[in-house]
Amino acid sequence: MKKLILVRHGESEWNKMNLFTGWTDVDLTYLGQCEAYMAGRLLKDEGFRPTMCYTSFLKRAVKTLNQILDAMDMDYLPVEKSWRLNEKSYGALQGKNKAETLQKYGEEKLMAWRRSYDVQPPALDITDKRDPRNDPRYDAVSDAELPHTEALCDTIARLMPYYEGTILKAFETNDEVLVVAHGNSLRGIVKTIKGISDKEIVGLNIPTAVPYIFEFDDQLNFKKDYYLGNQEEIEKKINGVKNQANKK
Amino acid sequence: MKKLILVRHGESEWNKMNLFTGWTDVDLTYLGQCEAYMAGRLLKDEGFRPTMCYTSFLKRAVKTLNQILDAMDMDYLPVEKSWRLNEKSYGALQGKNKAETLQKYGEEKLMAWRRSYDVQPPALDITDKRDPRNDPRYDAVSDAELPHTEALCDTIARLMPYYEGTILKAFETNDEVLVVAHGNSLRGIVKTIKGISDKEIVGLNIPTAVPYIFEFDDQLNFKKDYYLGNQEEIEKKINGVKNQANKK
Repeated sequence: MKKLILVRHGESEWNKMNLFTGWTDVDLTYLGQCEAYMAGRLLKDEGFRPTMCYTSFLKRAVKTLNQILDAMDMDYLPVEKSWRLNEKSYGALQGKNKAETLQKYGEEKLMAWRRSYDVQPPALDITDKRDPRNDPRYDAVSDAELPHTEALCDTIARLMPYYEGTILKAFETNDEVLVVAHGNSLRGIVKTIKGISDKEIVGLNIPTAVPYIFEFDDQLNFKKDYYLGNQEEIEKKINGVKNQANKK
Repeated sequence: MKKLILVRHGESEWNKMNLFTGWTDVDLTYLGQCEAYMAGRLLKDEGFRPTMCYTSFLKRAVKTLNQILDAMDMDYLPVEKSWRLNEKSYGALQGKNKAETLQKYGEEKLMAWRRSYDVQPPALDITDKRDPRNDPRYDAVSDAELPHTEALCDTIARLMPYYEGTILKAFETNDEVLVVAHGNSLRGIVKTIKGISDKEIVGLNIPTAVPYIFEFDDQLNFKKDYYLGNQEEIEKKINGVKNQANKK
């Protein structure tokens, strides 16, 4: 049996302030660090023993993974970081308050930007200093591949070569693989594994810092998926994510 | 110009308790975490921008590196971990108090084990549960390569293939490389770069969590080395390491 463990990063500073984050490299809150550590503790207690880890270029994911490995006493595990696991780019919305954006643009546009499969939020202007082409961490990535905004379908399109070519390939030599990433990059992985439709995937809310386990047979046929932990608490967390845009 | 940045991990729980640590996977103290973060802050303020990082399989080194990257806002940097950067194995002395060992075996033996180039401390018994062959993190390493004890020369011998074949090779595509490791594995690197004799290297005390910079020209000819930070404070730290065995 093969197991893929997905974890969405813990609470970030901008989650807390209810701002659009995207590719902005905001830090975890202290709560976010603790959530992440508890996720690692749970994985350890439940007997999970990953041997390979993947995460994004964004510190809220990297530091969530560090906390998990620390809690599991597995700081020594190999970790590979990739920009392809980054959160969906929210373009010019990055740094904007979700409630204000709702007031300014109305619910229909906001919901399309947040929850449609193929509608892109307003793009970053190419002169914007937040353009990832100005960030040395992306020096090895070609300009054409670096987004100024993304719909979910764009996020999934740039994720897939990495998911298929690297993460799935890791199962040739590993039985358990851990991926710590973001709400939308993880949606892409879950969509692919479970064959979820474009329309339905936008309604999938993955709670922060809850290990989401996918079991496969040795030929990588998907068998089952489940969240690890208290199911009632997890349900609450999922509903919390869903109601984020209404928060003041 | 090429720059190699060496950092010895911050204070560990067993440094604090004055026990022999070696391959035992003890954690950083809170002081150790803060020291490490400050080292990262200093590197950032002084304009260092490494693009590749190496560390050992031991959490005190991994977590020191994590703190440094966090302080530098460079959590996204690639990190490779290797058992070859581990601390010298202190064999059966691991977990023993340094002051008690001094009383039991006398200064001559203790100093030979701590500070000779080629005298091994008593070996771990092959039935000892601390034998690294029982630790899954070393599964990929052949039994013959896993030490039951090491003199400094043994540590350096297993380090060299990695230093020469991986770390130095990284300069082909990187200008600044960061290595976070341990007192004795770092001695091996410094010995090689500066051509220090077997006799003199044992007297070299590298302070914890102080960036030790080596500058090379583009052909990797060694130019100069220096510690980053307040030189008086660093001198104090070096003397602190030297007097460890006399602590009660």
